[in-house]
Parts: sequence; C-alpha cells; structure tokens
Amino acid sequence: MRNLKLTLSFLGTAYHGYQVQQNAVTVAGTLQSAITAVTGERVELKGCSRTDSGVHARAYVCSFRTASPIPCQKLPLALNSHLPPDIGVLSCEEAPPDFHARYSAKGKEYQYDIYNSPLRNPFYEETAWRFAPRLDEGKLNAWAGEFLGRQDFSAFRAAGGADIDPVRTLTRFTVTRRESLVRFQVEGDGFLYHMVRILVGTLLDLHQHKLPDESPRPILLSRNRARAGFTAPAKGLTLNRVFY
Amino acid sequence: MRNLKLTLSFLGTAYHGYQVQQNAVTVAGTLQSAITAVTGERVELKGCSRTDSGVHARAYVCSFRTASPIPCQKLPLALNSHLPPDIGVLSCEEAPPDFHARYSAKGKEYQYDIYNSPLRNPFYEETAWRFAPRLDEGKLNAWAGEFLGRQDFSAFRAAGGADIDPVRTLTRFTVTRRESLVRFQVEGDGFLYHMVRILVGTLLDLHQHKLPDESPRPILLSRNRARAGFTAPAKGLTLNRVFY
Repeated sequence: MRNLKLTLSFLGTAYHGYQVQQNAVTVAGTLQSAITAVTGERVELKGCSRTDSGVHARAYVCSFRTASPIPCQKLPLALNSHLPPDIGVLSCEEAPPDFHARYSAKGKEYQYDIYNSPLRNPFYEETAWRFAPRLDEGKLNAWAGEFLGRQDFSAFRAAGGADIDPVRTLTRFTVTRRESLVRFQVEGDGFLYHMVRILVGTLLDLHQHKLPDESPRPILLSRNRARAGFTAPAKGLTLNRVFY
Repeated sequence: MRNLKLTLSFLGTAYHGYQVQQNAVTVAGTLQSAITAVTGERVELKGCSRTDSGVHARAYVCSFRTASPIPCQKLPLALNSHLPPDIGVLSCEEAPPDFHARYSAKGKEYQYDIYNSPLRNPFYEETAWRFAPRLDEGKLNAWAGEFLGRQDFSAFRAAGGADIDPVRTLTRFTVTRRESLVRFQVEGDGFLYHMVRILVGTLLDLHQHKLPDESPRPILLSRNRARAGFTAPAKGLTLNRVFY
C-alpha cells in the first residue's frame, strides 16, 4: 500500500469543518468521495487537524493509504475535476509508511484576519471578520508577544478537545495592519481546541476594556478559561501551513 | 441639489457589468434600488466607467444628485444595509456641482490577476483567471513596457465602444509574480472598450507563440485589431483606483 500526502486549499464557509461527520457536508467527506471516484477505493483520510466549521486553509495536509497505481503528478488534477470550486488539491507526494498528517506535524501557522471597519469590503467578506472599532495594532502586537514560548494554555482552550496536555510552544505571534486589514499571525508546535480564536478574542476584549485585566499575562497564568475573552468567529481564521 | 460621490467595492461575478440594463442584474441597478430605499428618491447614477460583466472593482466611483439631507458619514452604512454582500459602499463625499464620475476622471488603475497553475486555488477562483502554462513574468514585463506613453491603441479596442479617439497615455504597465499569482498592473489616462483584457490576451498570445509577431510593437503600430491577441476573460480584471 502506498501512503499519499495531499496538500489542499479550501474556503471553509460551506463546510461543517474538515472532519467526516454523519449528515453534514465536510471537507474530508467531500474529498473522500472524489478519491473514491478517481481510485474506486473507499479510503480513510488522516487530516492534520480538525478545523472548525467555517475555518479556511491555504495548505491543509492529509494522508491516506491506497493500492491505486495512479502517479502522484496526475492525482491533483484528477481529484479537482471531482471537487467543488471551494476545495482544490494543490499537490500530492509519496510519504513514508509511518507518515501521519496529524501526528507527524511539528508545527502549524495560522492567520486571523480582521477587516477593521464598520463598512464591509466584498473582497474580504469571506475570509476576514469585520470589526468596527478602530484597533491599535501596536498595542495588540505587544500583548501577543506575551504568549511566546512554552506556556500552559488552559485558559485558552474550549471544552471538548481531545488533547490532555495543555502546554504548547508559540514561536511567533504578531499583529500587523495593511490599510483596513489587521492580521494576527501565530506559529507554534500545536494548538488546543479553539485556541487561536480564543487568543484573538481575548486580545480584542482587552483592547475594548471588556476584561478586568490590563494585559494577557494574568489570564495566561490563571489557567482559567473564564478569565479569558470570547471566541472570535471562525470566518477570519485560516490555517496557512503545516510543518513536518 | 447636492452632488454626492460614492466609492464602492464589488465582486462582479454575479452582475452583468456596472451599467443599468433592462432585464439584467447590474451593479448600478442594485445600487440605485438601495439609494431609493434610503432616500426615497429615484436618482440617476453617473459611473466612472462601464465595467464589463464579471469585472470586479476595489474602488469604483459614481456620483448622483439628491435632495436628501442624510449626512455623508451616515450614507455608506445605510446603503450597505440594503446591498448584497458582494457590493459595499466604502465612502461618500460631497462633490462640486460640476463633478461627474466619468468625465472628471484623470486616470485609472486596473489589475489583471492570473493564477498560473493547472491546479485551482479556491482563494483565487473568483478574482483571478487560471492559466496553466508556466509564464515568464520577466518577458511579459519587458513587453508591457513597450505600451508606455502616448499611443494609438486602435489594435487593442473591441467594436462597440463609445469613444472616438483611440489615443491613450499609459503611465504604468508592469507584470510581477508572487508565487503562483502573476499580476498585470496598468495605469493610464483612460482605456478603450476591452482594452486591458486585449492587452493581457495579446501578451499571453505572444508568450505562447500564437501570433506571427515577436513583440507587441508592430501590433501596436498596425492599429489593426485583427493583429492583436484574444480578449482575456473578465474574471481576472479589477478596477483598482480612479484618479481625479
């Protein structure tokens, strides 16, 4: 059996997340049908993460075992002809037998985009969340820096995640602006359930003085989800890259 | 009567161009209905250009006369609440009585985006045209430079335009690449009917050796539309800015 690694790009708006679910249209379910159409096989897809409903990805990685002899360079085009326009396979590679899209991942990079205006811009409606009050990206960027390094992120995880260990290491967390677009970029060895969205929501709540704290540090140290801010909406979040 | 200048952003995919038409959904027709809903008036919109069906705009300018007392800073939000997500009013300003979105324009900037890959990327499906053969952006950029200055663009206009004079001055025409995205950026004092799309199509046809000529110069000098290349599809074209 070959072990194939696929990289895909998708707009998550129309999907109930990545993971296959009964009675819901998901990215993995849609991809699985395309793989069946091309190879004639019913395969089991291993995804690099369970992205939430509405979250996008520029380079999502998944893997599956197959007996199909179709060469790697032909598979993306063949799969794309069976996929809707909001999912595209970018590449296919032969992977070592023990490669697993999730467990082999050494890290990930996410971005969260905010269109910082009371007025919508159609070019950003699908991939950015609109937030009207003017944001001070310098202040947000300084706060984001407080999360860097190896930390216990218990305060920034939603109930329901499968991970037991709440410790993660962030190697980058920056906030930058280009005109009305404010971009949060975060890179780390792994992320807890809803972690990026809660980090962004907490920075926004601090910025709007909606929390008793004046910086993220005491919230992080509390390890208490109730001390952190809201979960920013899925539509602004994009998985940019997975590192192996 | 006040003369108001509106700047809007729209994704043109769902529209039969900007200009109002009987029995077709257009950007101006949709905006006119929103203005009527907000002001109670039936106004006449003057647009900065007749964009084709499927063409997008980041900052389209139009103007209209109104007796409504609604202040400029309230109008964009009010109009947006009556507009679909693919059209957004970005700003509103009081304009001098003789301001006309089209005749007062001193120049425009367009971009044409090509996603240069056989494989689709959902993030670019709506605003870029996919073109599979690998493009040499250095060669395209050098050719684009041959169009700069004051020229007779008769070879690069479609039949049906209202303009009589075929002479236009281009002050910028560059081709750059960022990963798989190849961007044509062109700025000039005005553009003939389909001109940007025929310029792009001609550069692509030259690149693919589909024309007897080896550079755009003889085609430009011929002033003969039959010597130029195809009309690149509307979906890759975006009006970026209008200069006044």
